[in-house]
Amino acid sequence: MTEKRVNKQEKSGGSSTTHGLEGDVRLWLLDFGPDHVDQHEVSDLNQAFELRDTSSVTWLDVSGGTDRTVLQKIADEFGIHALVVKDILNVKQRPRIEFFPDYIFMVMKSARFDGKTLYLRHVSLVIAKNYILTFQEGDRDLFEPLRERIVNAKGRLQEPGPDYLAYAAMDMVVDNYYTVLEQMDDAVAVCEDRAVSSPDQKLVNDIHVIRRNLIRVKRAIWPLREELSVLEHEQHTLIQPETAPYLRDLYDHVLGAVEYVESLRDTASGLMDMYLSSASTRMNEVMMVLTLIATLFIPLSFIADIYSITFVPELKWHLGYLFVWVLMLGIAGIMIAYFKKKKWI
Amino acid sequence: MTEKRVNKQEKSGGSSTTHGLEGDVRLWLLDFGPDHVDQHEVSDLNQAFELRDTSSVTWLDVSGGTDRTVLQKIADEFGIHALVVKDILNVKQRPRIEFFPDYIFMVMKSARFDGKTLYLRHVSLVIAKNYILTFQEGDRDLFEPLRERIVNAKGRLQEPGPDYLAYAAMDMVVDNYYTVLEQMDDAVAVCEDRAVSSPDQKLVNDIHVIRRNLIRVKRAIWPLREELSVLEHEQHTLIQPETAPYLRDLYDHVLGAVEYVESLRDTASGLMDMYLSSASTRMNEVMMVLTLIATLFIPLSFIADIYSITFVPELKWHLGYLFVWVLMLGIAGIMIAYFKKKKWI
Amino acid sequence: MTEKRVNKQEKSGGSSTTHGLEGDVRLWLLDFGPDHVDQHEVSDLNQAFELRDTSSVTWLDVSGGTDRTVLQKIADEFGIHALVVKDILNVKQRPRIEFFPDYIFMVMKSARFDGKTLYLRHVSLVIAKNYILTFQEGDRDLFEPLRERIVNAKGRLQEPGPDYLAYAAMDMVVDNYYTVLEQMDDAVAVCEDRAVSSPDQKLVNDIHVIRRNLIRVKRAIWPLREELSVLEHEQHTLIQPETAPYLRDLYDHVLGAVEYVESLRDTASGLMDMYLSSASTRMNEVMMVLTLIATLFIPLSFIADIYSITFVPELKWHLGYLFVWVLMLGIAGIMIAYFKKKKWI
Amino acid sequence: MTEKRVNKQEKSGGSSTTHGLEGDVRLWLLDFGPDHVDQHEVSDLNQAFELRDTSSVTWLDVSGGTDRTVLQKIADEFGIHALVVKDILNVKQRPRIEFFPDYIFMVMKSARFDGKTLYLRHVSLVIAKNYILTFQEGDRDLFEPLRERIVNAKGRLQEPGPDYLAYAAMDMVVDNYYTVLEQMDDAVAVCEDRAVSSPDQKLVNDIHVIRRNLIRVKRAIWPLREELSVLEHEQHTLIQPETAPYLRDLYDHVLGAVEYVESLRDTASGLMDMYLSSASTRMNEVMMVLTLIATLFIPLSFIADIYSITFVPELKWHLGYLFVWVLMLGIAGIMIAYFKKKKWI
Amino acid sequence: MTEKRVNKQEKSGGSSTTHGLEGDVRLWLLDFGPDHVDQHEVSDLNQAFELRDTSSVTWLDVSGGTDRTVLQKIADEFGIHALVVKDILNVKQRPRIEFFPDYIFMVMKSARFDGKTLYLRHVSLVIAKNYILTFQEGDRDLFEPLRERIVNAKGRLQEPGPDYLAYAAMDMVVDNYYTVLEQMDDAVAVCEDRAVSSPDQKLVNDIHVIRRNLIRVKRAIWPLREELSVLEHEQHTLIQPETAPYLRDLYDHVLGAVEYVESLRDTASGLMDMYLSSASTRMNEVMMVLTLIATLFIPLSFIADIYSITFVPELKWHLGYLFVWVLMLGIAGIMIAYFKKKKWI
Repeated sequence: MTEKRVNKQEKSGGSSTTHGLEGDVRLWLLDFGPDHVDQHEVSDLNQAFELRDTSSVTWLDVSGGTDRTVLQKIADEFGIHALVVKDILNVKQRPRIEFFPDYIFMVMKSARFDGKTLYLRHVSLVIAKNYILTFQEGDRDLFEPLRERIVNAKGRLQEPGPDYLAYAAMDMVVDNYYTVLEQMDDAVAVCEDRAVSSPDQKLVNDIHVIRRNLIRVKRAIWPLREELSVLEHEQHTLIQPETAPYLRDLYDHVLGAVEYVESLRDTASGLMDMYLSSASTRMNEVMMVLTLIATLFIPLSFIADIYSITFVPELKWHLGYLFVWVLMLGIAGIMIAYFKKKKWI
Repeated sequence: MTEKRVNKQEKSGGSSTTHGLEGDVRLWLLDFGPDHVDQHEVSDLNQAFELRDTSSVTWLDVSGGTDRTVLQKIADEFGIHALVVKDILNVKQRPRIEFFPDYIFMVMKSARFDGKTLYLRHVSLVIAKNYILTFQEGDRDLFEPLRERIVNAKGRLQEPGPDYLAYAAMDMVVDNYYTVLEQMDDAVAVCEDRAVSSPDQKLVNDIHVIRRNLIRVKRAIWPLREELSVLEHEQHTLIQPETAPYLRDLYDHVLGAVEYVESLRDTASGLMDMYLSSASTRMNEVMMVLTLIATLFIPLSFIADIYSITFVPELKWHLGYLFVWVLMLGIAGIMIAYFKKKKWI
Repeated sequence: MTEKRVNKQEKSGGSSTTHGLEGDVRLWLLDFGPDHVDQHEVSDLNQAFELRDTSSVTWLDVSGGTDRTVLQKIADEFGIHALVVKDILNVKQRPRIEFFPDYIFMVMKSARFDGKTLYLRHVSLVIAKNYILTFQEGDRDLFEPLRERIVNAKGRLQEPGPDYLAYAAMDMVVDNYYTVLEQMDDAVAVCEDRAVSSPDQKLVNDIHVIRRNLIRVKRAIWPLREELSVLEHEQHTLIQPETAPYLRDLYDHVLGAVEYVESLRDTASGLMDMYLSSASTRMNEVMMVLTLIATLFIPLSFIADIYSITFVPELKWHLGYLFVWVLMLGIAGIMIAYFKKKKWI
Repeated sequence: MTEKRVNKQEKSGGSSTTHGLEGDVRLWLLDFGPDHVDQHEVSDLNQAFELRDTSSVTWLDVSGGTDRTVLQKIADEFGIHALVVKDILNVKQRPRIEFFPDYIFMVMKSARFDGKTLYLRHVSLVIAKNYILTFQEGDRDLFEPLRERIVNAKGRLQEPGPDYLAYAAMDMVVDNYYTVLEQMDDAVAVCEDRAVSSPDQKLVNDIHVIRRNLIRVKRAIWPLREELSVLEHEQHTLIQPETAPYLRDLYDHVLGAVEYVESLRDTASGLMDMYLSSASTRMNEVMMVLTLIATLFIPLSFIADIYSITFVPELKWHLGYLFVWVLMLGIAGIMIAYFKKKKWI
Repeated sequence: MTEKRVNKQEKSGGSSTTHGLEGDVRLWLLDFGPDHVDQHEVSDLNQAFELRDTSSVTWLDVSGGTDRTVLQKIADEFGIHALVVKDILNVKQRPRIEFFPDYIFMVMKSARFDGKTLYLRHVSLVIAKNYILTFQEGDRDLFEPLRERIVNAKGRLQEPGPDYLAYAAMDMVVDNYYTVLEQMDDAVAVCEDRAVSSPDQKLVNDIHVIRRNLIRVKRAIWPLREELSVLEHEQHTLIQPETAPYLRDLYDHVLGAVEYVESLRDTASGLMDMYLSSASTRMNEVMMVLTLIATLFIPLSFIADIYSITFVPELKWHLGYLFVWVLMLGIAGIMIAYFKKKKWI
């Protein structure tokens, strides 16, 4: 399973990054003033801490391996519970939500698919009164396009609250699921064509890998459903009423993604049936033609064998050799007629 | 998969329409006065906007590709939320319902089946105090027969409220599901006959396509269930008490459609089993007859071979040739008797 | 699929009856006085209408094709909603319940099984203050034995309320399900025996038909579950407290029927596995014996072929022919020993 | 299916007993005084009725076929509803619970397994203020060991209430399920060994019988779950607070039994897969060896056939015969090498 | 099934320990003072009892076979209900929770996997006001590392409440599940490689064992879900508010473990499909090549047989022998061309 191995390498690559400390960690800071939106990379955490206590909304994005030291500093500064720190670092933690009096903590998995391997990254969010923190595993910065969009739209939109920013970030992650699922849908369609035209063992492996990936992506999406439902119904003071329709919309997108996964899984499983029947049909076709040829000649060979016996009286007849040929052609004809009647040929 | 490809062409056709602007968009306006029902196609949106503020109930139906520009104008005029506009344009949006203080927004999928391909179209509804807006993807006007029916019935029925009109539109969509499912039921029945009479690889592909279509139609119907349940229980002021029995009836129809889909899926999946066993039975039958013939002649050929050996003493016997024939027929008889006893022939 | 076809004929037969008007419709009237129970067939609807306003409990049973004209008259007279009329006429309507201020409307499906075909009939009930209406599709009068039983029991039991009569009618329908399911259970048991003794393609078709019928009967029973649950918990004034235990008992019977269907479906699906393994075992058995015979003789024939070569030196040996036989028997013996060791024979 | 047949005989045996009246019915009476516990068989029902009105707790156990006459007498005396009598007599009634103001009625199924057949018996309980009635189908007295235990423990335990006695009786039934499931687990383990060592058609039938039995036992246990949940939460005055932990414990045991059944069903279904693959592996192995032998000799025989042609020039060569042997051994060697390379041998 | 047998031996080993009394039972006592944490093994139960009434938090851990005598003494001393004692001793008891006024009782299963066999151990917890009791089946002390950690961390953490200790113990058990599931994931990955490279019967057995183990581990984890949910929502006075986030975190871990099991089961089941198709592909490949060879030579042998007939006129032709060879090579060429066109070779 190359998929497996690549995935493990990646993981180990991710964890080696963890030891690489500040050099690998990147921090982006987005600050919303009354009439400006600033985005800049920060090298010193204190820059971020200064903005914490201002009234403007601030977004601190930590990517490139969630380093324990950096994280601990942030946690101490922002007053984050030890359990939250544990869950941010634990890349195996499933998506979850936890309400604290002063902030909301969420875990998600972002997905990327390169046609063969499915990469799931651990993404954590902390939503507080006037800031939002995001933590991303790995060095791909998922939220860069989102930040760009916000910066470019500065004139047009109002200052967004941390809850709207959280929605936007989550929407980004969910949109990625659709991109991934459409890529997988294409992969399934390719397999469908192959199942008809050239079913081989490789196809079975490919279908198996697709099914594994679908299982993995489902495990990533499924808990989001409950997470969003809780977020909407809990009525935490950090979630403002005007954000509710956005959350419900997002919830519906997640439901749609779950249904998409399920339908792909059903299709992939029907694909396996199709492969099996396709392979066995091909096999049967070959076996049948070959068996028919064999069967046709076996009685004929028998007759030839008979007349090879050293002293066969019939051959003393006049026209004996002709008789043998007539006998053999007659039997062949009857057998072919019988096969045709049975619709075997 | 021709089904797939056709489907994609259609989709791209749909989106190319989207760029074709007002030329392709068609607007129908239905206006209910105290003693008249007017239906006419409008070319100018302002005609529709004028009727908005009258006390009469108005139905504006936008079909032929939901054009962004036209939609945005309507949204601005009627005060529709940006999220709703996004969902009307996003043809991948799954069916959902969203309540706003002044209006209710619903998304549905209408279905059409031409015997091979299943077409799902994005249909959106906005129900407000004295008007209803409908948006249809593609250029088939699903609601035309309904509008005709309403116009023709003008003398007989009272002025319907927007909620009743919404019910009538939804009922139309759900009735279409039954039509589609009955067509699929027929397709399944045809496959059943073929599974018995002539099981071949094409049948497998056809069953696979049916199963895919059933998965797709289920994804379209399933969310409607919850949508209607919410619509009935939310007690929005726009839904009048006398419409409730109609909504419950519709809800039951949707439940019935879901059960119909499920039973067809079960049947289609049993069909695959049937094909596989049918194909293997046919194969086994051939193999068996042929193998029996081969087996019968193998020992006989062996005997003939023996007596082809250049110096075989037995042939010096008187009646040697007769002996060979008796031996061979005896062995053949014993084998046939054994096969019969075993019920192989 | 003969099952399918017969079923369709029947349906079309049913609908042709619909055109046959009053001639085919039969109405039975059961009237409970303080000290009498009258049952008689009525030819004039007005007879039924006269009894509506009396204080005695009246049961009007309409069977033999629910004729639209007759139905409309009854609906007008008894004040029944247009939706109810639509659902009584729509034989595809799934089982449902609807509460109105003055009456309760229920739809059920009665089942009959003749060993091959499953007939599902549309049965509707209207329960009102002092009467009950029943409408049956088709000309079999399902409730005749029940009416007989009530008339015969007149001395012994109290005047039953419409709710008890409705319970009795529903109980009749549910009891029929058990009868049908037991017949299907027998059919499954017969298939089990056949799967062991003589697995053939016909069996596969029979199992497929059984599975289809189980799917259909499940679709008929399943909604009854919710229907009865709603009926018991809604606390409509028409349902008297002393009827509640009867409804709970009926609810349990319906649950039992659902579980029965599920267990039969599991068994039928296990039966398919059993058939497949049974068929392949039989096939393997034949193939194996035959292949063994073929394999045994192939090397022997080879040896005989060798000694058919025109100038074979060994045959010049003294005892050459004996040598050939010893060689062949030796090889045959070794092969048989090998096969036995491997437990192939 | 012998299992089926035996089961039916038993059933009919059970129902023939039903006609055998008082001779077959056995009644045991257990009476708890302040300082004594009396157990004796009663032949006259009046003995039981006398104890009904005493303040002491009384247990009347009716076994050996629930005779309608006897049952009716008891029902009249103890004021039991007609529906309850119907459910006690109806051995097909699924497990259920019904609350009446003065008593609680419960139906259960006791299970017994003799290694081949699963026997399910109808057991009914009536719990009232100061007595408990139990009714057992068949002549095995399930509760005898329980009564013995209670009588022997008289000194040590307090006077138990009817609710505790009911718990004890139900606990007995549930413990029996575990015994039965462990026996079935063993049967599954035996089948696992057979699937590896000697897969044959009999195994398939045995697995099928195990699966059927698991389906049946599940149908018996499943409703108990809800029954106990209702019993605990309904807060009927007959259930005392101190009995609640016992009921919750019992509820957990039932849940455990349900999970046990499910895991056995999963295992049995995996077993079928295992059998199929095991059988096909065995078959493939045979076919492969035999086909290899056949294939090896076919070209060799061809060569021998060639040199059997009456006038073959090569044989005129000197060493012609040696050449033939070298040719044949060479071809055989090449084929064996090819087979080895392909890892077929 | 070696897995089965080993498992049974272990079980019987466990129960033989049970008879071995105090010699085998080990008791560890952990006592939290205001500024110290003491851990020592106790040989005399009275030592533990003395600490019960002190205000400090005490943890008594009983491992090495839950001996009935020892347990009874503890139960008497700590006032534990007889049902609890029964459940602690009953190693078949499924995970459950029971609230008593003074204490909470929980049952869990700890898991260990040695690559082949899955060991599930019965672990019971009693949480009371100022102490916690744990009972472990078997002689492995699961909680030793946890106790060590607590003792070592004495300076740093506050005195933990019994509820936090219970959380820590449960967390240990749940973490073990992840360890076990990761080992099983590796085993599945190994099987995936084998399914591609060398599918054989042993693989089928291994997959079957993996599936059984997954079923067993699921039965162990599943009830924990409800247990923790109840523990969090019941709001028992023994559970302090600050422990709630920990319990929710644990609950999420359990959910994640359940999802992990499910995804492994799906994968293992897809693995079986993959094995079957892989095995049949291999088989088909062999059969096909061999059949092709056989088919090729059958007509050729027939021709050779013909010319072995004693008096064949053609051989009298000049160049007769050459003609035979041309005929045979021609037929062989046509057949090979046909096979190539059909893509069989």
